Amino acid sequence: MTLRLRPLNLNREIMELKSYLKDRKALVEAEMSKSIGDSGIPETLQKAMNYSLEAGGKRLRPILVFAGAEAVGGSHDMVMPAAVAIEMVHTFSLIHDDLPAMDDDSLRRGKPTNHKVFGEAHAILSGDALLVEAFSVLAGACNSSNQENILSVVSDLAHASGGRGMTGGQIIDIDSTNRKIDEAELTHLHMLKTGALLRFSCTAGAKLCGATEDQIEALDNYGRDIGLAFQIADDILDIEGDQELLGKDVGSDQGNLKSTFPSLIGLDESKKRSADLIERAISGLSIFDEKAEPLRLLAKYIIERKS
Amino acid sequence: MTLRLRPLNLNREIMELKSYLKDRKALVEAEMSKSIGDSGIPETLQKAMNYSLEAGGKRLRPILVFAGAEAVGGSHDMVMPAAVAIEMVHTFSLIHDDLPAMDDDSLRRGKPTNHKVFGEAHAILSGDALLVEAFSVLAGACNSSNQENILSVVSDLAHASGGRGMTGGQIIDIDSTNRKIDEAELTHLHMLKTGALLRFSCTAGAKLCGATEDQIEALDNYGRDIGLAFQIADDILDIEGDQELLGKDVGSDQGNLKSTFPSLIGLDESKKRSADLIERAISGLSIFDEKAEPLRLLAKYIIERKS
Repeated sequence: MTLRLRPLNLNREIMELKSYLKDRKALVEAEMSKSIGDSGIPETLQKAMNYSLEAGGKRLRPILVFAGAEAVGGSHDMVMPAAVAIEMVHTFSLIHDDLPAMDDDSLRRGKPTNHKVFGEAHAILSGDALLVEAFSVLAGACNSSNQENILSVVSDLAHASGGRGMTGGQIIDIDSTNRKIDEAELTHLHMLKTGALLRFSCTAGAKLCGATEDQIEALDNYGRDIGLAFQIADDILDIEGDQELLGKDVGSDQGNLKSTFPSLIGLDESKKRSADLIERAISGLSIFDEKAEPLRLLAKYIIERKS
Repeated sequence: MTLRLRPLNLNREIMELKSYLKDRKALVEAEMSKSIGDSGIPETLQKAMNYSLEAGGKRLRPILVFAGAEAVGGSHDMVMPAAVAIEMVHTFSLIHDDLPAMDDDSLRRGKPTNHKVFGEAHAILSGDALLVEAFSVLAGACNSSNQENILSVVSDLAHASGGRGMTGGQIIDIDSTNRKIDEAELTHLHMLKTGALLRFSCTAGAKLCGATEDQIEALDNYGRDIGLAFQIADDILDIEGDQELLGKDVGSDQGNLKSTFPSLIGLDESKKRSADLIERAISGLSIFDEKAEPLRLLAKYIIERKS
C-alpha cells in the first residue's frame, strides 16, 4: 500500500501496537463474558448471544473507546461499559446482517454464522437481546457524578446504531444492491453503515472521562476519517486480501454486484484516498500530547491490516 | 365473564373509560408521527417503521404510562418520551414476532404484516430501528433536573425489553412450542413475554414524575398483576373472541399446539384466575386517591376487552 505517511514499518512501533491491541482486547473480552453470564437471561438465549460475542474479531471498537479515554487522561474502568456496549451493538449487527433475508452468509470469522448454529429465530432474538443489553450495560454504569455524560453517550449510541446511523446505512446498502450508485451515495452509505459506530467509539470514552468540547470535536473528526478509511480498506481487502486471514470469502463484493470504492474510482485511487483520510485523521490529533499516540498508530493500522 | 368484582357495567364508567382511552391514544399517536418524521432516517426505513407504528392498536402501554403519571399527580408532557418509547418497543416486538422465522403471521390488526409489505430484510431492520429509537427518544428527553429519573427509566426499559424481559420470554415461548409445559413455566414465560413491558409501563410515568418508593412499588405490583391477567385474557379471547374485532385468527393457539392457561387449568378457572389478579391489582392501589381511578378502570378493562 503506497503511503505518503510513514508506514508502520519500524519493528518497535509494530511490536508496541501489537501488544497494545492484545492487552485491550483481553480487557474487554474478560468483561463481556461476565456481563451476559449473570442470571436472568434464559440459557438458550445466553448461549446464542455468547457464541457470537465470543467468536473473536479485532475488538477495534472497544479498543478505540479505550484509546479515546487514554488520549484525554482517563482510565479504562471509567469507560468499560461503553467498550462492552459498542462491541455488543457491533455483534448484534453482524448476526442480523448474516441472516438469510439479509446477506445470507454461512461463515463469519471462519465459524458458522449464528443462524446456522442456533436457527433463524434464535439468531434474530439474540441480536435483539445484544442490542438491548448494550443500553442496559451503559445505563447501569451511572453514578451520581457521571449522569450527564452517561446520558449523552446513551443518546450517541442510539444515534450511531439506529435509523440515523448503522441501521439506516444497512437499509441504503440493501436498497442500492444491483443498482449503480455514485461516489457521494457510496460515501454516505459507508459513513452510516460502518462509520457511525467507529465514530461513536472514538468519542464515547473521552466523553465519559469529561473531555472538553474541543477534544471531543477533534476525536469526532478523527473517527469520521478513520471510519471511511476503514471501509475503503475493507473494499480493497475484498480484492487483495488473504481468504484465510480474513475468515471469509474474498471477491464477494464483485460476485454480489456491489458498488465499492475500487469499482467506482479504481484500486490505486482507493488506496490514495484511504491514505489521505488517515493522514488527515492523524494531523487532526495535534491538540493531544503523547497520550494520543495509540490513536495515531491505530489510524495507520486501519489501512495496513490484513484482516 | 364471571367476576366477583363489580364489572364495568355502569354506562357512566364505560363512557368515561372510552373517552379516557381515546384522548390518551390520540395524544401518543400525534407525538409518535412527529418522532419518526424528522430528517436523518432513510425514507424507505421511515416508511416501514411508520407502517407498523401507525397500524393502530389499543396503545395500552402508553396509556398506562400516562395513568401511572396521573396517579402521582404528574403531567403528560413529563412522561411523553416514555409513552412513545414503550409503544416503539412494543411495535418492534410485533414486527419481529410476525417474521417467517418466528410466528410467520400474514395479518396483524387486520392489515398485512410488515414483512409482507416491505420484505423480510426491511422488516428486521425497521424493528431494529424502532427498538433503538425508543432509547433515543427517552435519553433525548433529559434535562438538568430529571437525569437520574431518565437514566433509571432507560435501565428499566432495557431490563423489560431484553433477555431478562420480553426477548427472554419470546425465547422461552419458542423453546417450549410443541412440548407440554406446566403452569409455573407458563406463568414465568408470560411474566416476561407480555408482562415485562406492561409492568414497565405502569411504573415509568410515575418514576419520571418523581414518585416515592412506596408509590413505585405499588404500581409495580399492579403492573405485575394486570400483566399476567392481560395474557390470560388473551388466551381466553383466542377461544371465545370475535375474529373481526381481534383482527387476527382465533383458535390459533390450539392450531399451534401452544400451552395456554385454558389448556392447562380450564376455561372457567382461567377466568377466575384473571379476575382474582385484577381484584388484587385494584386493592393494591389503596394508597392512591381518586387520581388513580383510571388505573382502577383500566384493570377491569384488561379482562373485559373484546380485542
